[in-house]
Amino acid sequence: MNPHEYAAAHAPRFLDQLKELLRIPSVSTLPERAGDVRRAAEWVAADLRRIGMQTVEIIPTPGHPVVYGEWLGAGLSAPTMLIYGHYDVQPAALEDGWTSDPFEPVERDGRLVARGASDDKGQVFAQIKAAEALLAAGGAPVNLKFLIEGEEEIGTPHLGAVLAAQRERLRADMCVISDTGMHTPEQPTIVYGLRGMAYMEIEVWGPKHDLHSGGYGGIVYNPAQALAEIVAALHDAEGRVAVPGFYDDVLPLSEAERAELARSAPTEAQWAQETGVTRFWGEPGYALHERVGARPTLEVNGLSGGFAGAGAKTVLPARALAKISCRLVANQTPSRVYQQVREYVARLTPAAVRSEVRLIAQAYPALTRLDSPAMEAACAAYERGWERRPVFERGGGTLPVVADLQRELGLPVVLMGFGLRSDGAHGPDEGYRIDMFYRGIRTAICLSQIVGQMGRAGLSG
Amino acid sequence: MNPHEYAAAHAPRFLDQLKELLRIPSVSTLPERAGDVRRAAEWVAADLRRIGMQTVEIIPTPGHPVVYGEWLGAGLSAPTMLIYGHYDVQPAALEDGWTSDPFEPVERDGRLVARGASDDKGQVFAQIKAAEALLAAGGAPVNLKFLIEGEEEIGTPHLGAVLAAQRERLRADMCVISDTGMHTPEQPTIVYGLRGMAYMEIEVWGPKHDLHSGGYGGIVYNPAQALAEIVAALHDAEGRVAVPGFYDDVLPLSEAERAELARSAPTEAQWAQETGVTRFWGEPGYALHERVGARPTLEVNGLSGGFAGAGAKTVLPARALAKISCRLVANQTPSRVYQQVREYVARLTPAAVRSEVRLIAQAYPALTRLDSPAMEAACAAYERGWERRPVFERGGGTLPVVADLQRELGLPVVLMGFGLRSDGAHGPDEGYRIDMFYRGIRTAICLSQIVGQMGRAGLSG
Repeated sequence: MNPHEYAAAHAPRFLDQLKELLRIPSVSTLPERAGDVRRAAEWVAADLRRIGMQTVEIIPTPGHPVVYGEWLGAGLSAPTMLIYGHYDVQPAALEDGWTSDPFEPVERDGRLVARGASDDKGQVFAQIKAAEALLAAGGAPVNLKFLIEGEEEIGTPHLGAVLAAQRERLRADMCVISDTGMHTPEQPTIVYGLRGMAYMEIEVWGPKHDLHSGGYGGIVYNPAQALAEIVAALHDAEGRVAVPGFYDDVLPLSEAERAELARSAPTEAQWAQETGVTRFWGEPGYALHERVGARPTLEVNGLSGGFAGAGAKTVLPARALAKISCRLVANQTPSRVYQQVREYVARLTPAAVRSEVRLIAQAYPALTRLDSPAMEAACAAYERGWERRPVFERGGGTLPVVADLQRELGLPVVLMGFGLRSDGAHGPDEGYRIDMFYRGIRTAICLSQIVGQMGRAGLSG
Repeated sequence: MNPHEYAAAHAPRFLDQLKELLRIPSVSTLPERAGDVRRAAEWVAADLRRIGMQTVEIIPTPGHPVVYGEWLGAGLSAPTMLIYGHYDVQPAALEDGWTSDPFEPVERDGRLVARGASDDKGQVFAQIKAAEALLAAGGAPVNLKFLIEGEEEIGTPHLGAVLAAQRERLRADMCVISDTGMHTPEQPTIVYGLRGMAYMEIEVWGPKHDLHSGGYGGIVYNPAQALAEIVAALHDAEGRVAVPGFYDDVLPLSEAERAELARSAPTEAQWAQETGVTRFWGEPGYALHERVGARPTLEVNGLSGGFAGAGAKTVLPARALAKISCRLVANQTPSRVYQQVREYVARLTPAAVRSEVRLIAQAYPALTRLDSPAMEAACAAYERGWERRPVFERGGGTLPVVADLQRELGLPVVLMGFGLRSDGAHGPDEGYRIDMFYRGIRTAICLSQIVGQMGRAGLSG
């Protein structure tokens, strides 16, 4: 029995097992769910043991544990594939708009509806079941290492330390992540770039305490006004980020890459439908999908200061605060951008007030070369398993783990999503198309087979 | 016995009566104190009857009542003086930092310490006791009308309707208000101008709901950024209000008036001490005290929009809001300034977002001519009663009642304060210097005598 036959024969059981995992409410952000998160880790570890992984370990962290499983039966000369995923989920409750209990999976219209069905229990479980099929059919052609964390939904705070501590053990030739979505079920998508982040606070101070705006307005520089002036100067009139040097480190888009990105780009009507906006804006010279995915941006995430209640309060506020975040692309670094924003804000700050820029969170951008062998292997796997060549996208968002894996372990990371954008990740009635679960298993089996054929030399070429 | 002798003879009783009034916690903003506010109105009405006012009435309003008292014994040919004050007070509690119960007056270091001692029970009671002394000494040389409201500390919401309804009855030749403070006990101050107000909200909308800043940042015009750009454009680089036409209606300061104002102007060191600010700002060509009192200004009272908590939330907010207020001077009108701001903001709003400017509160500016006979009478009264010629000030704040009295009744209004700036109005340990209470009574008696001598013809001249 070859692995595909095995997978087909055990398909109903695979689905039942996924339902078992989905019944565990492993909501990582809720302290009262810590026991359930632990239970999900143990369930995943037990399944990895059951399918024949040689070493399985629950690695503790200061938060929720990481599940590690290893099968090295392909031998030292064979390539090694590291598969990352997460077993934790977002919160969910009936009153959020769910049609049924989010932790009691039900099949409806060909979808398995439950929190985590797509993000990411269903997708990572497709990878595990592919490994089961390979091992049951006589062994995988590649060494397999699973790294499945329990804190993705709270920002992956502890995985970096695990990567650093386990660097030797995690050595591999490529890394695969199945935690993204396609626009349509027929057209697979590989996200080959994700943006990094420098999240900052700009605070402006003026008088020693809030003042009466009648008694002092017009002579004391108003910190809220100064903040507005600073924020207004962060972009030029055409939509470029005006922070000096901001674009210096940006890797330009090649014409080939632009053409590739254009193939999967949403239409303006789609953007309009998602946002309710009809007139768009941004950096001149770039299409909308390029601005979102391939160019760095600076957004105001929040403004506060003074009186924000109903009615009138005649206060001249002593301070005002803006939250801003820069999304970064290769080869920008968060610390350099933070430094550039700091210097620019210092220059913009009127002498009559004081200001400070604080770095709140940071993440490196991630980019996998389109012409890398790992990427070729992923394309071939989709062509065989999904029966369609994938399109390539750059994601506007940030998954810090991708850059961490690239930087800490020096691996090419391929984001092979088996989900759909419309799965409803993080929302009510999240679900996963059952046929996509099975196609994911098939495609993951193909990937191991193709990478095995390429060999280590082919992968590093 | 002349009125001054009468006042001197009854001084201890006057003080005891004031203490009685101060024991009534007539906090107008607290619903549970409505009974006490009513009790204070009745106490004031009873005292007006006791001193010989011919007609005393408690005029109901949808909120707290207005006390009206009238003595017309001087005859039709004599001038009539309308005296405005308020019997309600700000909240006060021991835990706010009071040394003793705020509603149990105590004498300490020559001060009577209690909530309302200066603002305004003590000052309006000095006016009532002056009337008592005049009537007891054979009748006042002027007709007297008292209008004492119970809602000053909550913004005088219902007095306008009373003024309109009682316009005939409230006819007078001048109006006096004792509800302001001097810088020092020796130097009386007349506030002859108060600023008006147009308090507005600017709201900017963009997408139909909050968006993920990674997924849509850089193509959707951020409402918080648009708001910052609008707010930043409300002033020019030198500190002038940039709203077109904003200064058009402003009555310019004469050289004489500037010289008069300079006499009582605080030093820059005093401004710095009060605000904690060392570098000042504002409209070029005007001194600090002129910017605050005699020039219109525009302040940002609050900014809000998006995420303002601790940490990072990567949201592109759907809307953002600024609270702004313009302080107006004669002869600006709130509705015209609102219109100017609306038009300017509409012009500044980028096409990719929508905005609205809403008028939240408004008040007219008030200005009494320095060379008016009423003002001359007040000066002469201070010279005789306080033994010092007053200096003149323009207040930066807003007392809507002053403009209402000027506009609704067509009266010259003179703000003859008998308090001190350091009395602690609205704060803990509010107090009133007992010697200033008595000097206030003396000065108020002098005012009636002087106005009586001037006659109606002299007053209108």
